[in-house]
Amino acid sequence: MVEPVTKHWERSESETEFARVIAFTDGVIAIAITLLVLNFDTPELREGQGLLVENLGALQPTVLSYAISFAVISRFWLLHHRFFGSLDRWSTALMELNLLYLALIVLMPFTTDILDNFQGQAAAPVLYAINVAAVSTVNWLMMRYAVNRRLVHQPTPDWLADFASPYGLITPAAFLVSIPFAVFVSPLWAPAIWALALLSGARRRRSMAARRRSG
Amino acid sequence: MVEPVTKHWERSESETEFARVIAFTDGVIAIAITLLVLNFDTPELREGQGLLVENLGALQPTVLSYAISFAVISRFWLLHHRFFGSLDRWSTALMELNLLYLALIVLMPFTTDILDNFQGQAAAPVLYAINVAAVSTVNWLMMRYAVNRRLVHQPTPDWLADFASPYGLITPAAFLVSIPFAVFVSPLWAPAIWALALLSGARRRRSMAARRRSG
Amino acid sequence: MVEPVTKHWERSESETEFARVIAFTDGVIAIAITLLVLNFDTPELREGQGLLVENLGALQPTVLSYAISFAVISRFWLLHHRFFGSLDRWSTALMELNLLYLALIVLMPFTTDILDNFQGQAAAPVLYAINVAAVSTVNWLMMRYAVNRRLVHQPTPDWLADFASPYGLITPAAFLVSIPFAVFVSPLWAPAIWALALLSGARRRRSMAARRRSG
Amino acid sequence: MVEPVTKHWERSESETEFARVIAFTDGVIAIAITLLVLNFDTPELREGQGLLVENLGALQPTVLSYAISFAVISRFWLLHHRFFGSLDRWSTALMELNLLYLALIVLMPFTTDILDNFQGQAAAPVLYAINVAAVSTVNWLMMRYAVNRRLVHQPTPDWLADFASPYGLITPAAFLVSIPFAVFVSPLWAPAIWALALLSGARRRRSMAARRRSG
Repeated sequence: MVEPVTKHWERSESETEFARVIAFTDGVIAIAITLLVLNFDTPELREGQGLLVENLGALQPTVLSYAISFAVISRFWLLHHRFFGSLDRWSTALMELNLLYLALIVLMPFTTDILDNFQGQAAAPVLYAINVAAVSTVNWLMMRYAVNRRLVHQPTPDWLADFASPYGLITPAAFLVSIPFAVFVSPLWAPAIWALALLSGARRRRSMAARRRSG
Repeated sequence: MVEPVTKHWERSESETEFARVIAFTDGVIAIAITLLVLNFDTPELREGQGLLVENLGALQPTVLSYAISFAVISRFWLLHHRFFGSLDRWSTALMELNLLYLALIVLMPFTTDILDNFQGQAAAPVLYAINVAAVSTVNWLMMRYAVNRRLVHQPTPDWLADFASPYGLITPAAFLVSIPFAVFVSPLWAPAIWALALLSGARRRRSMAARRRSG
Repeated sequence: MVEPVTKHWERSESETEFARVIAFTDGVIAIAITLLVLNFDTPELREGQGLLVENLGALQPTVLSYAISFAVISRFWLLHHRFFGSLDRWSTALMELNLLYLALIVLMPFTTDILDNFQGQAAAPVLYAINVAAVSTVNWLMMRYAVNRRLVHQPTPDWLADFASPYGLITPAAFLVSIPFAVFVSPLWAPAIWALALLSGARRRRSMAARRRSG
Repeated sequence: MVEPVTKHWERSESETEFARVIAFTDGVIAIAITLLVLNFDTPELREGQGLLVENLGALQPTVLSYAISFAVISRFWLLHHRFFGSLDRWSTALMELNLLYLALIVLMPFTTDILDNFQGQAAAPVLYAINVAAVSTVNWLMMRYAVNRRLVHQPTPDWLADFASPYGLITPAAFLVSIPFAVFVSPLWAPAIWALALLSGARRRRSMAARRRSG
């Protein structure tokens, strides 16, 4: 990871390549978020057995986990979108972090499916929380790296400095904190903690938008 | 949802970011519409048991529901495409409405599968109608919000003013109206009402195109 | 389908919207071609039962049908790509033909799966041939419509005039002709006729490229 | 494959078409890499039977094969991205090689699934190694063809000359060499050889980046 500053490329020199990285990233995230629909595939419904009205109740955990994951992934996308919009230069290391970030995002339809199918077992929200915390940490590493190496517009926008500070680790921390609650108290606590983290994150994003406007 | 006018961004100031939002939206819709093919997967056909010619009849409801959903999603896409083409500015709230819109579009391959697998049960068209009505309503909210906040070209194009007026709620209304017919009369009534709504919508779109041309 | 000439849009006036139509089309085709991999999913292999070496033989029809469909879809894409590259204007009717074209392309992973799973039964290649002939016919209609309405660069490029002439119906005709052979002679004849059609098409495309260069 | 030099197109003359080829390629690769998540679908987990904690161990080979394939495909993408960035002209033959390249990439989610499901049987890593070696060889052919026909920026960048030299066949060779080890020694040797090949490739890529910077 120790790379001399000289290995960076100016965005202006390679706009097409930069656009391609963004398009690839967006493509992977768009596919991952759309594959979430494949989780709506409980055996009873797929085979068309029994009365649909009576089986619909079984969809409740699927709908809930779908809503959580759609909110989580789209928030990651919004942040990535804004972060890359402020990049002036990029480097091989940033590219590799971005691929690691994508590799973890791609797992989310699977951990969402687990969350839905193993309701009531602590291991399901634990796996999910680890996945989200990992994506969120790599995301934070990318932003911190870009800010420290001055790959972003100078002066660094306030909202980005904020996200790249230790304060930006609040989201992964919230997901990790949900783990002991899921294990030692009840699996139901985990989604409640996540919802809190997402809502406070949304508020932060709004204030970030306001600051960006005025800044 | 109450946001001061100051939180809007000019499209010209952030063309790249705007293009990314459109690309992401198009990506999700393109994937959702293509995933419809996965519904062509009845157990008998998948395992290759029995004579294909004799099993082909079982495909009829699948083909029908595929045709309806392809028409519905592609109409949504055409409208979104035209609507976003007339935007001059955008805001966080519009972005969030767009994500909600996508979250509902992504569900369509599933509700289409239900429509196909539970033919003859009222709950299937009811679920489907709720899904389409929800997408359509969020779509209308986006257009109304953009027109009211003057995020679109000024003066507002006639066709868009039309769609953003209460008159634009005809599509979701038609889908909601199909629900009591499906429940109290027969599940077969619902697709007939939808076809009417789609055809009248297509005529409206053509006249919209004509007006746009002359306007 | 009878539309006055006045309903066309200049490409130069709406380059972004035009780009979006192309991106959507490419997205759908890219997803459809990639979903072909899901056909490599015979039950024995999926469950990991038995010795892999002994089961590999069962993959042969899957590999063959995959190769045919990849060749067919990518040829359609190449042609679409070249055709749209020569468009100067577009219209609502062209857009609708394009959506119909996509609706038929999206079915190809399914008809490919049928081709693979029901080897030896005439109905499988018949279904496949109908699908390809339908895509090919709509493709031809789009090109003919665009040439007749002068939506393409003027003077019309030779290769496009060629494809839009009755001569361009050779591909769908070849696929339709394979049907009686599959039914009355043997299902094995169909792929042989298709291979011939594809190879002669490739030669035509090469000569088209040469003409385009010189033209 | 014998094509006169005259059949090439300048990138500057057809930037839009060139961009479309890139977008299609990126789309297919993005979908293929995201479909890898569908392999996380062992029957026990899907049906939600048994205790999740006890079944998680069964995921180990899936996680491992996912990590290998994500690394392999993303490396292919990075190289393709850089290679196409240096193209000034393109030809029909290059386009066809690119489609062949994609047809082989699309198979990777399947060979990855095999690798995961048939752990311990030599045929699984053999199939996987053949797939990667084939992609890698076609990739090398594309680069060699482009360098020899002078389709790339002149003078040819050092790193590309390097990749297009016989030296660039090291990756496919490493994957082919792993085959006898898997068959005659142990299936476990194959992934170890691949990891070595990938790591040495990564080092080569870094030095390539350095050279490119200075070159």
